Amino acid sequence: MKLKHLSYALTLALVAAGSLQAKTVDITLTAKEVSLPIDNKGTMATTWTFDGQVPGPLVRVTEGDTVNVTLINDKANHNSHSIDMHASQEDVLTDFEPVSPGSVGKYTFVAKHPGVFFYHCGADPMIQHVARGMYGAILVEPKDSTMPKADREYVLVQSEQYPNPENVPEMMANKWSHVVFNGIPFRYDPVHDEAASKMLQAKPGELVRIYFVNAGPNEFSSFHPIAGIWESVYPSGNPKNVLHGMQSYVVGPGDAATFDIRSPKEGANAIVSHSLRQALTGAIAVLQFTNDADPAMGHGDNIIVR
Amino acid sequence: MKLKHLSYALTLALVAAGSLQAKTVDITLTAKEVSLPIDNKGTMATTWTFDGQVPGPLVRVTEGDTVNVTLINDKANHNSHSIDMHASQEDVLTDFEPVSPGSVGKYTFVAKHPGVFFYHCGADPMIQHVARGMYGAILVEPKDSTMPKADREYVLVQSEQYPNPENVPEMMANKWSHVVFNGIPFRYDPVHDEAASKMLQAKPGELVRIYFVNAGPNEFSSFHPIAGIWESVYPSGNPKNVLHGMQSYVVGPGDAATFDIRSPKEGANAIVSHSLRQALTGAIAVLQFTNDADPAMGHGDNIIVR
Amino acid sequence: MKLKHLSYALTLALVAAGSLQAKTVDITLTAKEVSLPIDNKGTMATTWTFDGQVPGPLVRVTEGDTVNVTLINDKANHNSHSIDMHASQEDVLTDFEPVSPGSVGKYTFVAKHPGVFFYHCGADPMIQHVARGMYGAILVEPKDSTMPKADREYVLVQSEQYPNPENVPEMMANKWSHVVFNGIPFRYDPVHDEAASKMLQAKPGELVRIYFVNAGPNEFSSFHPIAGIWESVYPSGNPKNVLHGMQSYVVGPGDAATFDIRSPKEGANAIVSHSLRQALTGAIAVLQFTNDADPAMGHGDNIIVR
Repeated sequence: MKLKHLSYALTLALVAAGSLQAKTVDITLTAKEVSLPIDNKGTMATTWTFDGQVPGPLVRVTEGDTVNVTLINDKANHNSHSIDMHASQEDVLTDFEPVSPGSVGKYTFVAKHPGVFFYHCGADPMIQHVARGMYGAILVEPKDSTMPKADREYVLVQSEQYPNPENVPEMMANKWSHVVFNGIPFRYDPVHDEAASKMLQAKPGELVRIYFVNAGPNEFSSFHPIAGIWESVYPSGNPKNVLHGMQSYVVGPGDAATFDIRSPKEGANAIVSHSLRQALTGAIAVLQFTNDADPAMGHGDNIIVR
Repeated sequence: MKLKHLSYALTLALVAAGSLQAKTVDITLTAKEVSLPIDNKGTMATTWTFDGQVPGPLVRVTEGDTVNVTLINDKANHNSHSIDMHASQEDVLTDFEPVSPGSVGKYTFVAKHPGVFFYHCGADPMIQHVARGMYGAILVEPKDSTMPKADREYVLVQSEQYPNPENVPEMMANKWSHVVFNGIPFRYDPVHDEAASKMLQAKPGELVRIYFVNAGPNEFSSFHPIAGIWESVYPSGNPKNVLHGMQSYVVGPGDAATFDIRSPKEGANAIVSHSLRQALTGAIAVLQFTNDADPAMGHGDNIIVR
Repeated sequence: MKLKHLSYALTLALVAAGSLQAKTVDITLTAKEVSLPIDNKGTMATTWTFDGQVPGPLVRVTEGDTVNVTLINDKANHNSHSIDMHASQEDVLTDFEPVSPGSVGKYTFVAKHPGVFFYHCGADPMIQHVARGMYGAILVEPKDSTMPKADREYVLVQSEQYPNPENVPEMMANKWSHVVFNGIPFRYDPVHDEAASKMLQAKPGELVRIYFVNAGPNEFSSFHPIAGIWESVYPSGNPKNVLHGMQSYVVGPGDAATFDIRSPKEGANAIVSHSLRQALTGAIAVLQFTNDADPAMGHGDNIIVR
């Protein structure tokens, strides 16, 4: 009886501690040079990735967490790689140092600032490592947020596609052929590319939260929902930074922000970069508001729609 | 006597209701493909317009209003056109659908978010419809504003002029020849173009409010008043979003914001995009502060100076 | 005895007045066309400058001050020059008028808005006068600031270098070869240029305040500290405009902002414009956090590191 009481008390203490105390989180990402589709038709090309995916996996931690980052550079790779997490405060020379194929790099940081942050490879030439697909989003969830709870969450990462991924001078000259979300032109836009098979989905009235990263490497984004309005925009995703009722917001290359949107009715919005040559080469994603929205979309593995 | 009292009460009730209840507003715009001057000398070219003007008319509604939008595509036109109002929350596929010459499109929205919003044609190829002149501003006036009352108001819409308006690939390649305010290089700048005959005007001490839209289609604007300082900047024109004492503010393509300025003395400011190749090809407007300012300027039909 | 009391009272009154009343400040800058290094190796080229330096000297005044500006155009120069201070509210036509070699220009303004502001030559062709080096920062310190006190301060001015400074059409076409901080590619980055001999320095825990100006003339900046996070960003440097925990912030050409950063540990951050073709041609500055930081760095004459 006494033991049981003690056990109960301990559990309570742990629960309380869990909600108050920061935890330690281990994040392991593996750099992989793999063949992936670069358009909706399935044209394959060698991409450089985190975990074999473009964008890399969504990393989620909580403000105050101690984050142990491990980067494995797969021994089958031909290039050194690194990981620069914008959520961290580190030494650029030692912590973000490239590691050679077959090697492992590690660093630790405390996630001091809540928000959504870009992560990417910083190995030389960085412009190529980013252009070839080594980018993703890390979310540092606020401990005590004033942000309303989202009903669905999506990640969109904007980047430029270059005609020849071996041609670094072409990247330095900004001669991209497409601006894309999540690695593929019109990936979520069957209106502009009939080979597109997926869209973002939500029900009318639901609060949809989009974690938007502009990987660049070069272009600025004017992020806008056609036929919608951003209910709130949080620069860098920080709850203390809030803009209301915004039609568009500029996100520079290497930056990220959180965008909330809601629709009063069924129908589609088309999320774009409103720099039209960016939109019309690929930077359009349809967000479908329907009462039949798949309950799995915008949750778990479907926050990045693959 | 009793009737009179009742009538009085009813009137009071209606007045009270008028200040509290939203109204329904009908907006009709006509797409017209017409010849208009594209410089201060009067060189004519075929432009595509709303109501035969570049920019299109300023639309004014109040937060909460129900807005019925009617787009007439003049039967003399050669192209389909549409209207995308950034103040609305709609279905991009049905509401913003292009209508063919001689046809009419309609949609309705509730103007939920106050501010200044871009409107434009979204018919394919959108980049050309915007570049040829199909853009304007819609103002959703806040119900209960914390913004100070403006003494004068002006609309400036930035856009790019392309050498050959038939050449869509040139637009996609961003090969503009001029960046302009309200459709004409140096339209309000007799310093840089002696053929310019008009300027914006105000008296010293007056609060001048500029509704600024960046139509793009491609370029970002760094909006700055030479020899002045923005007293306040309201991103998207929303009174809740306010920045103080700003020398410049970036407005992406497809975005809009409200800028307040005041001068302590007589003299001129030159409003520019401070990306200098934009300014020096046409994106300069003189705002003349003079005790003799024409009282009609910055009011009514002279908010867009034609 | 009586006199002594009176004197004491007077001194007190003056001290009190000093903290409350605005003062008059005389600023004199001399336009000089001089040969200066344009890279870390010491390659010399004719630059156009304020006071023979790129960037020009940091001007510091306090909110409310009356500032008398005198521009001397050195008689050895070959071009007219002017000074446009973004902190001032003036008449662009008379106050910012170019003065010929051997002549002097003057104007006076009250520094009404606190913050960090761009100053530059506006003489025709302005794009060339800026590109050749006629730019700097003026700091209007707030009277009653809510900003925390900085332990060290640095000025970084971003600009584009063009291959041929005589070639104005090249500037209008935005064909720069390098984007730089404080006039020289990788000026503070021995990692990317072994000829670089200086870095910014601070101790861990110190609050480092960076006054950042984007001189352009054309490019937008996505200002980011690699391996760090901006603790606060103040658009236009105004204490009323504050963003928290930002990974990056877009500063348009002709704009400026204040950025606070702090490191929890020893190590380096690399401050960049995250538009990577800008960074990789020169827009990188190393900020070294070390317990051995030179106490003179980030103070007095070492706020602009020369």
